[in-house]
Order: sequence, then structure tokens, then C-alpha cells
Amino acid sequence: MKNLLLLALSLLGASVPARADEGMWPPNALPTATLQQRYKFAPSPAWREHLMRSSVRFNVGGSGSFVSADGLVMTNHHVAADAIQKLSTPERDLLNGGFTARTRAEELPCKDLELNVLQSIDDVTARFTGLDEGARRAAVNELEQSESQRTGLRCDVVTLYKGGAYHLYRYKRYSDVRLVFAPEVGTAFFGGDADNFEYPRHNLDVTFVRVYEGGEPVRPEHFLKWSAAGSKEGELIFVSGHPGRTNRLNTTAHLEFLRDVQYPMLLDWLRRQEVLLQGYGQRSAEQARQAQDELFGIQNGRKARGGGLQGLQDPAVMDARARLEEDYAEKLPTYTADAARVAAAVEQLDTVFLRYTLLEGARGFNSHLFRLARQLVRRAEESEKPNAQRLREYSDASRASLDQELFSEAPVYPELERVQLADSLAYLLEKLGADDPLSHQVLAGQSPVARAAELVRGTRLAEVDYRRQLAALSATDLRASTDPMIALAWKVDPAARELRNSYEQKVALPLEQAYGDIARAALARVGAEQFYPDATFTLRLAFGTVAGYRENGAVLPAYTDFAGLYAKSEAHADATPFRLPARWGEARSRLKLNTPLDFVCTADIIGGNSGSPVVNRQGEVVGLIFDGNLPSLLADFLYSDRQARALAVDSRGITEALRSVYDNAALARELEGH
Amino acid sequence: MKNLLLLALSLLGASVPARADEGMWPPNALPTATLQQRYKFAPSPAWREHLMRSSVRFNVGGSGSFVSADGLVMTNHHVAADAIQKLSTPERDLLNGGFTARTRAEELPCKDLELNVLQSIDDVTARFTGLDEGARRAAVNELEQSESQRTGLRCDVVTLYKGGAYHLYRYKRYSDVRLVFAPEVGTAFFGGDADNFEYPRHNLDVTFVRVYEGGEPVRPEHFLKWSAAGSKEGELIFVSGHPGRTNRLNTTAHLEFLRDVQYPMLLDWLRRQEVLLQGYGQRSAEQARQAQDELFGIQNGRKARGGGLQGLQDPAVMDARARLEEDYAEKLPTYTADAARVAAAVEQLDTVFLRYTLLEGARGFNSHLFRLARQLVRRAEESEKPNAQRLREYSDASRASLDQELFSEAPVYPELERVQLADSLAYLLEKLGADDPLSHQVLAGQSPVARAAELVRGTRLAEVDYRRQLAALSATDLRASTDPMIALAWKVDPAARELRNSYEQKVALPLEQAYGDIARAALARVGAEQFYPDATFTLRLAFGTVAGYRENGAVLPAYTDFAGLYAKSEAHADATPFRLPARWGEARSRLKLNTPLDFVCTADIIGGNSGSPVVNRQGEVVGLIFDGNLPSLLADFLYSDRQARALAVDSRGITEALRSVYDNAALARELEGH
Repeated sequence: MKNLLLLALSLLGASVPARADEGMWPPNALPTATLQQRYKFAPSPAWREHLMRSSVRFNVGGSGSFVSADGLVMTNHHVAADAIQKLSTPERDLLNGGFTARTRAEELPCKDLELNVLQSIDDVTARFTGLDEGARRAAVNELEQSESQRTGLRCDVVTLYKGGAYHLYRYKRYSDVRLVFAPEVGTAFFGGDADNFEYPRHNLDVTFVRVYEGGEPVRPEHFLKWSAAGSKEGELIFVSGHPGRTNRLNTTAHLEFLRDVQYPMLLDWLRRQEVLLQGYGQRSAEQARQAQDELFGIQNGRKARGGGLQGLQDPAVMDARARLEEDYAEKLPTYTADAARVAAAVEQLDTVFLRYTLLEGARGFNSHLFRLARQLVRRAEESEKPNAQRLREYSDASRASLDQELFSEAPVYPELERVQLADSLAYLLEKLGADDPLSHQVLAGQSPVARAAELVRGTRLAEVDYRRQLAALSATDLRASTDPMIALAWKVDPAARELRNSYEQKVALPLEQAYGDIARAALARVGAEQFYPDATFTLRLAFGTVAGYRENGAVLPAYTDFAGLYAKSEAHADATPFRLPARWGEARSRLKLNTPLDFVCTADIIGGNSGSPVVNRQGEVVGLIFDGNLPSLLADFLYSDRQARALAVDSRGITEALRSVYDNAALARELEGH
Repeated sequence: MKNLLLLALSLLGASVPARADEGMWPPNALPTATLQQRYKFAPSPAWREHLMRSSVRFNVGGSGSFVSADGLVMTNHHVAADAIQKLSTPERDLLNGGFTARTRAEELPCKDLELNVLQSIDDVTARFTGLDEGARRAAVNELEQSESQRTGLRCDVVTLYKGGAYHLYRYKRYSDVRLVFAPEVGTAFFGGDADNFEYPRHNLDVTFVRVYEGGEPVRPEHFLKWSAAGSKEGELIFVSGHPGRTNRLNTTAHLEFLRDVQYPMLLDWLRRQEVLLQGYGQRSAEQARQAQDELFGIQNGRKARGGGLQGLQDPAVMDARARLEEDYAEKLPTYTADAARVAAAVEQLDTVFLRYTLLEGARGFNSHLFRLARQLVRRAEESEKPNAQRLREYSDASRASLDQELFSEAPVYPELERVQLADSLAYLLEKLGADDPLSHQVLAGQSPVARAAELVRGTRLAEVDYRRQLAALSATDLRASTDPMIALAWKVDPAARELRNSYEQKVALPLEQAYGDIARAALARVGAEQFYPDATFTLRLAFGTVAGYRENGAVLPAYTDFAGLYAKSEAHADATPFRLPARWGEARSRLKLNTPLDFVCTADIIGGNSGSPVVNRQGEVVGLIFDGNLPSLLADFLYSDRQARALAVDSRGITEALRSVYDNAALARELEGH
């Protein structure tokens, strides 16, 4: 575990750590001293600017980059999958069949896709210093609106260091995005759940879209050049993307709660859902289709959280964390008191956690129809309050997205509802016990199975028109509704709201404040180039080297290749999820089989980094981040370069596949800039 | 819930219940008054004797019956599956391909299969009255041996009514059993886990073997005639078979513990295993093969226990149970005191249950290698004690089966061991908590993953010769072993033994005594023809009618047919587990598609009844029990005829399939007696 170096070892001050390539650094606070000392590399202002302006954020929660003079953007297939699905028809299944536009005219406009490109950052912390929560929120809104009007750009005030700093980010927005190329999902997600978060991997998880403005391809000022040579093992690389959320300041006490209570309980629930949805899907092809998306999400979550829990169960991790806390306590005068506040909040969390997840987190009412009922009930109640006093998802600002969900025409599957609600009512009963008054109230003297059947059969909430009618009622009138699901939502709401209030007042707010104080103290002590803020789905630069690792005594290589792809498919008798699309069989003789397909590197990434370009010192594309391995799943809490790795598609694999499998030399040439 | 009638409503004395076809009745204590009153049927002594001597018990835990003058025995495919597997070779996969012997010479001798046919029963209770445990055990052994020598039969003293009665059962044994006909597993277990315990069903879960003696087919004195007409809905039927184990006297307090603690915990563990083994199997076809059997068992258990828990979570079930207890308390003077003893034992159980399952039940060490290590450690220690003082699985009588497992050449899969042990050590850690001294002791400062890898890599217990060497050591010498798995077994053993001792003294024994007292009191009050003993894997007669039922508002028919089989396969696009073997496609045009394939009836069955013949008033075969539906899974604790049903293959479906699918008119004619 000697290489498990944690976040703020830099607080030691004397020297930067010898090997850890840690950190998700904002573009305006790169760790220049570290890079210089360790890699003899000094990122110039122009280098930073070029990378920043070539990097793209997807509104659907991923990253990407401009990779040609004609507005081509590279991202992961799994980032674009929802858009690809929406472009598919029963006759033309682009998700399973893949897509290649042979001409610009064939490029398909994607629905609901928006890209943001960061243009500039200003530190505006001073404007908000000393303001209370309400005043600060108002000032933020005002600044965002005025800057947006002034510049024509999307302007966000980003809260960094848990409130230790506020920066104004200005983005150029692009909303005309067209699909250029996507492989089959069987190629992009080769290995499915079995290979998810694993390594070695063999995924061509890439998709290209093109950005248009005024009906013409954008000619971006900045785009990344394609590396002719690709990367080498041991080479310094950079990842420029949008990591979503980290909690790197979590104290030992907080991590112990996650390890001992929160993660095990969540995993039991995820496994329960997984078994339930699999069983449901086995009943018929149609039921399998209905459950497919949710099942994928559940499996993905189970594997991700399982990997995180494995990390937390490693005493070496917890020991390293404890040493880090000793260092913090030594360097930061208020740390011990702040950590005690965290511990107190975690104790409070322990007392409300189970009931909170059941009632407010709705694990006890796992049903789309119940969710609709709760939204209607709360929308009616909250609408009668002043905007500032409402639950945040019922504020005026959230109204549009709330109503979008509430009045969505998305189908409701009654049998799936029945099965999931029955199981979650049973879960509620098992967790609360049969003697709990709430169990009695919810089940109304029936078994979970019978009660769920009654509720789903009796409610009309599956009808959009009916929901619109109910949404038009006052809270008083809605209270009189005889719809059984609405009645249940009313019945449960006082207890659920009380738990939410307890949770927010006794847990969430104290945690935010304590961690905020720690972050501010550390920032003040060492400065932003030694201490990066937790991830906020804003642009960050990570760095590291291409490097294999050891696992169970075996050495896992830094690169995989096409030969390995075919070998793996054969080892699984070409069976799902290791079944290669037909064109891969035909292409085999044309492919250079030893071309690198995927590789691993030590860069510090997390969810949201999907689609991030991997570049070399020259800022040239050598790869495309698409996943982390199992040991990397602890990255929510800490960085390690012992076994944790970021997974990338190799740039050479992409162009080789475009030429030899997809007969798309034109796109390869566009990438290569000739 | 009006038809949910419980066990000992007959204690009400005045009249037998109006509709409940409850009971697993020993052949020498049939409920003649009930049958006469409800069905105007009086089973004659000859009728009983004929059915008893035609019924067969399989040593592998199932039932069967003689169905021809030439020693043909009918049972389920899933009862014979292990024997069929053992007859298979890589070139000749009888399990997946099925088997038909065209001549007597082609019939295949089965390994390890023994059949018992009950010949007579004597009540020997008086011989053991007043004896203490040790003296009774000795007297039982002596009687069994002397009777066995005298008669040449297998003689077992069967403990009924938890010790309220002892009966001597004499069996004729047959060990030359040959496979005559088996369908493909895809036909027998059509629908797999998806359809397991469900209805409507479409399984041809039948296999025929022939019993030989002296190299010639047995000509049994008694065998069942085949019904020409089959059954009709509403018709009285009987099931003659060997139900394994029930706990129908369990008190409300005991059932609440099962509902609130034991079943939920078991189900979490089963789902955890299921997800783990599925993930393991996804890694390669070979890993899938390694995990297949265990995965099937886990899924079967998860579905069975899940159904049981659903039943216990029904307040109507618990209310009915409570009313039953009121009746018992009224009729049996000691019942209230006995039930209080049960409640006290259950409270004790609650305090040791978790640790007991982890340590002694070995859910914290789910590894074949650990099991071997524990067996070696305990074998060494126990061998140094007098036989009477040993743990029962280390007694002289158990030595042969212990050593058979210990020195088995069955392969050990190191990767499966590693994965399962890592997960179960994590389970132990999650349940005990990181601060428990035992967690520290077991994990030795490592993560579950690392510790499991170290143990599996370090142990030599996968080698049979090494196990033989260790088995030859004294306890003292074995204590010095440096094998890490042996060392772990030693380390855990004191705590595990202490838990076992606590469990046996404070839970198991008090429960046995309290339930024994209840059973004796009830038996004394109403007699054996009104009060059947809990199941003991001995011959019992159940009765009922062929009857469909309602579920979720739909009426499920009493019968399914071949048309439904094809329709279901088509609805699943002929995909596994709904894929029909090729010959079914070819046979479709020849089959009478409206021939009944499976049916449901209200007879009171449980595991062990698999393979039981279903007969009509004339004692003719109309079906073959192969499963219960989900609501029937509560039958461990109580009988219901509201939705709970026994599932049977229809005799008409069997002969039709033999003729039209398997081209085996000869076998059909043998069944039909011409």
C-alpha cells in the first residue's frame, strides 16, 4: 500500500509527494510546481487555454472534445447512447446496429443534446463574502443573469471548496449536434456487466458528433490534434474533463459509517432489485425489455458501490486515512473541532438513515406511480408557500423539470409497478417490523403483495390527463382524492417530511458547514495549486502516466489490442455479452490485430469524466477515457495509484477500427487532419 | 382467506373442517372419518396396502411408484437427474439429450440409487417409554438391527409426533435400478428458474426406471394401474409419497421470528450468493459451468424461501395462526405453558442467531476449502473423545460419510473459492463490524479480498493426499500445521463450538421438548386419525381435488396442455429456458395438442413428495407430483387450499408424449398394461 497517497499530503508542505498523480485541477489552478518537479513539464498559458477551449461538457453528464477543424466532437458511446436511442426506430436500430454518416447530409440531428465549452473563469469570491445564504443565492442569480446578458454566454457561479471560493464560469453553448459515427453497442459495451469496471478491457466506447451553427459545421478556434504515434507505457498524459462529484475530505468516522452502514444497506437493496428485475425479465421478452434500462443501472450501481465498499474494507486504506487526519489535525488549528462536528452529524445520520431511505428516499415505495403521487401531493402543498420556503425541487426554478416528469408520456408498466411496489413494501415491512405503526398505516392490514396489487389496480395515475386534472387541484381538494396511490402519498408524507427536515437540519447542513470550514482552512494554508477542490462537474485537468498494475499476483498490461478482443469473444463462445457484431468477423483479416485498443493510466478521474480526451505533452489526442477499474471506485473518497486506474480507448484503435471495420477512412483522415 | 384452514382445527372436535384437504397421513392412520364424510370414500385395508406397497422411496430424497408388472418405476426427472448425470459422458449427454432404452438390454444401470418399499408398520412406542435419551438410542439401534436380521428387510424406528410415538417401518430394498426413459432436461425443467414454483406450468418432469433383482426385472406383487381416462376437475385424488419435513406446530412467536429475522437474513444472503455466482459465471463458459449447480440451488432456495416469507407477511395467515393457538390453549391444558417455553427459546435464538449462522453455519466462511479444514480440525479433536460425547457428525456411525466427503476427488475451483471466501469474509465483517475481536482475528489486518486470496493461495487442502496426511495426525500435531486454512479453522473453532453449544442447549433442545409436549397432548386428545404427525420423509397419504384457483383477479385453470407449451415457447422466442428440444418441433403435427400436460390439486405436499403418484379412488395413476406453486411454499408451517396447490404431470400427457414425441409406444403400452 506504499503508493496509496492521499489528497492533502501536500499539506505536509515541505515537498510534493514522490509519485502520486493525484488531483482534479481547475484550469486556472494547475499544479505547476508538481508537474515541473515530477515531469519537468511546465504547462504554458497557451497550452492550458487550448486544452480548455477544446474540451466540451455534455448536458447529459459526460465530457468530450473538439477533434477537427470542422467541429467534430469525440465522446463515449455511453455518453451519446440516450441520443442514439432517440434517433432509432423499430426499422433502424442505431444502438444495436451502429451508425455511419457517409456525407454531411447524412449526419443526424440529436434531440435534447447541448454542449458547453468553457471560455473563461473569474474569481468572484469577494462578492459573496459575508453574505448569508439567502443574500448569497440572490447575488449569485443576479451575477449569472447580468453576465449572461452582457456576454451572450452561459454563466454559472461555481461553488468550490464547499464555499471556500466562488468562480464565475462562462460557457459557449452549442445545441445543434449531429450524429456522425457510432459503433454497435455490442462493440462499445463489449463484455457488458461482466466486464464493467474490470480490466483488461476491449471496448471501442467511442462516438463522434459534429457541432453545427447556422446550419453549417462549426469551425472551432481550438480543437485537439490527433497524435500520429499514440502513447507509450510510462508516458505522461493529461485528462481534460468534467468529474462529477467527489468527497475527498470525508473523515474516518464518516467513511466508517459508509463502510459499516450505508454501503452494505445500499448493496443489499441493489442486489434485491437486481434479482427482482432479472426474475421479472425472465417472464417474457416484453418484460425483459421493460426492465432492461433499470436493470442496467442497478447492476452498474451494484458493481460501482461494491468496488467502493471493497476499498473501504481495506484496513490499509483506513490507516492511511487516519494518518492523513493526524496531519490535518497538526497543520490546521480547527481540524479536530471540525472533525468532531462531522462525527456528531454522522451520529445523527445513523439514527435517521434507515427510515430516511425508506420513506424520503422511497426505497419502501419503489414505484413510478407512487413517485408521481408524491410529486402531485407535494406540488399542491408547496405551491401554496412562498418560493423561498419550498422544498427545493418544488421551487419556481425547478417547476419546468418537475412538470416535465409529472406530465411525461413515458409509459407506465402496471405489472412491473406491481412487482416492484410489492417487493419494496415487503422491504419496508422487514426493516420497520410488523409492529411499527407506519407498517400498519402503509399496509392497511394486508400483505405487501396484496396491498401493492390493490394500489396499482386502483390508481389512475398512469393516465397523463388524470395527472393534469389532479395537478390543477388545490391541496385541500387533492386531499379529498380517492385515488389510493394519492391517499397513500398523503398518509406517508408527514413522516417523510419530518425525516427530511431532520436529515437536512441535523445532518446535511452541519456536514456542509464542517467540511466547508476544513476546506477553507486547508486552502488558506497551502493555496489552490497544492489543494484542489472536490469535483463539481466543471472542467478539471488530471495527469498521470500510462501504467499497468498487479492484481492477485498477476501483472495486468498497460495496453490491450484487437487480438485480445477476438480471443475474449472466442473464449466466451461468442455468447452475449461477448458477442461481436457480424462486421467484426468479416474485418478480422483486414485489421492490424496488434493495434492497441484500450489502455490504463493513473490519472485521477471519476464519473463525469466519461468521454474526456487523453492528451500528451503536445496536447495531442492519444486516448479517450471511458471507465475506471474496480479499485478506482474508491475515488469518490481518495486517490490511489497502486491498482486504481482510469481506462481509455486508444487513439490508434479508433482510427484502425474506422478504417478496417467501419470502412470509414474519411473520418479517420478528418481526425488525422489530412 | 376463508379457506385457509389450519392443521389442528380438528382439535375443535365437534366436526371435521368443511373443505380443507389437509394432512400428510401415515398409512396406518388414515383420516377415514373425514374421507367418508367429505367424499363418501372409505379406503379399504386392501386399498391402503396396495397403495403402500406400490409406493417407492428414493434414497436421493424423492418418491416414486411401481407402474407395471415388470418392475417399472415412475418418478420425476429432477429426482433421477443426478443419476442421469452420472450416466452421461462428454459424447453422450443424457441430461440435455434425454434417453430412451429400446430394449431391456439397453436399460442403463444407475449408480448410487437405492429404492425402499414399505412393507409393514408396528407401533413400538411402549418399548421406549420412560427411557432417557441414551438408553432410547441404544434400544432403537438394537431393535433396528435385530428386526433387520430377522426379516432381511431395512428396519427403521421412526420418531413421530416429536417423540409422541415410535413406529417400526420395514422396507424392502432395491439397488439394481436401470434407466428406461428420460426426456431432455429442457423438457422436464421447461421454463427453468423463471417458471420454478409458478403456475401455469408445462413440464414433462418424468423419468422411468426399472428395478431388477438377480439380473431380471422385478415382478412386484403390487403396482399401480394406469388410468385410461385420467382425472377431471373437482375429482378426489390421492398422493402417496414421502414428504420430507414440516413444522406445523410452530407457534406465532416462532413464525414471527422466521418472518422478521431468519427469512429476511437468509434471503439477503441468498440474493448475495446469486448475484455473486452469476457474476462469476459471466467471466467465462468454464466459470459458468463451475458455478451452475450451486447457482441453481441458490435460486431454487431464494424462490422457495421468498414464497414462504410472502406467506408469513400476510396478516391473514398470522391471524389464522393466532386463532389456532387460542383453540389449542383452550383444548390443551399445558399449551400456554408449552408455547411460553417456545417463546423463551426463540428469544434465546434471537441472541445467538446472527453469530451462529456466521460461524457455525459458516456463512462467514463460504468456502469448500474452509469446510474441509473445519472437518479435519474437528475430526481430530472429536476422535479423541468417547463416541457418545462427540458432535453427532463425528460419531462412529457418521465416520464413513464424513470421510467420503473429506477424501472426495471432487474438483476444487480455486478462483471460485477465492471469490466466495472473499465475499463471505466481507459479509462477516459487515455483520460483526470492524471492531469485533473476531473480525480482527479472522481478517488478520487485511481486507476480505486480500485475506481470501492469501488463504486460498496458501492452503494445500485442495490435494486429497494432503488431506489424508492431515487426517492421520493427532489433534496436537494438527494444531502445529502451518496450512493457513487449517490455522484459520483452529482460530475460529472455540467461538463456533461455543455458539453451537449455546444453540443446542438453549434453543434446539428446549424447542424439541416444548413442541414434543404439545404434540403428545394433542395426540392424546384427538387420536392419530384426526392429528397427523409432522413430515419425516416416511410414507404419507395426502388427498384433495383437482382444482384451479384465482390469482391477481385472474382464474388459473386446473389443467395445461401441449398447445400451451408451444405457445409459451413461442412467446419467449424459443429462448432459454423456454427453448424446446428439436424433436418437439418435429412432433408438433403428430401431437394431440389439447392433451392435458400438467394439473394442480389441493393435496397437502412438500419437498420429498417429488415423484409421488397421484391416484384416483380406484388407485389408478392419473398424475405425477413434481412441484408446488409459490403460495404452497408456506406448507412447511401450514396448509391452505385457497391458492396453494400441488403441481402434477398429467398421466395422459405422459403417454401422449411417449407415443408422439419420443416414438416410444412400447413404454406407453407397458404403462397401460397391454
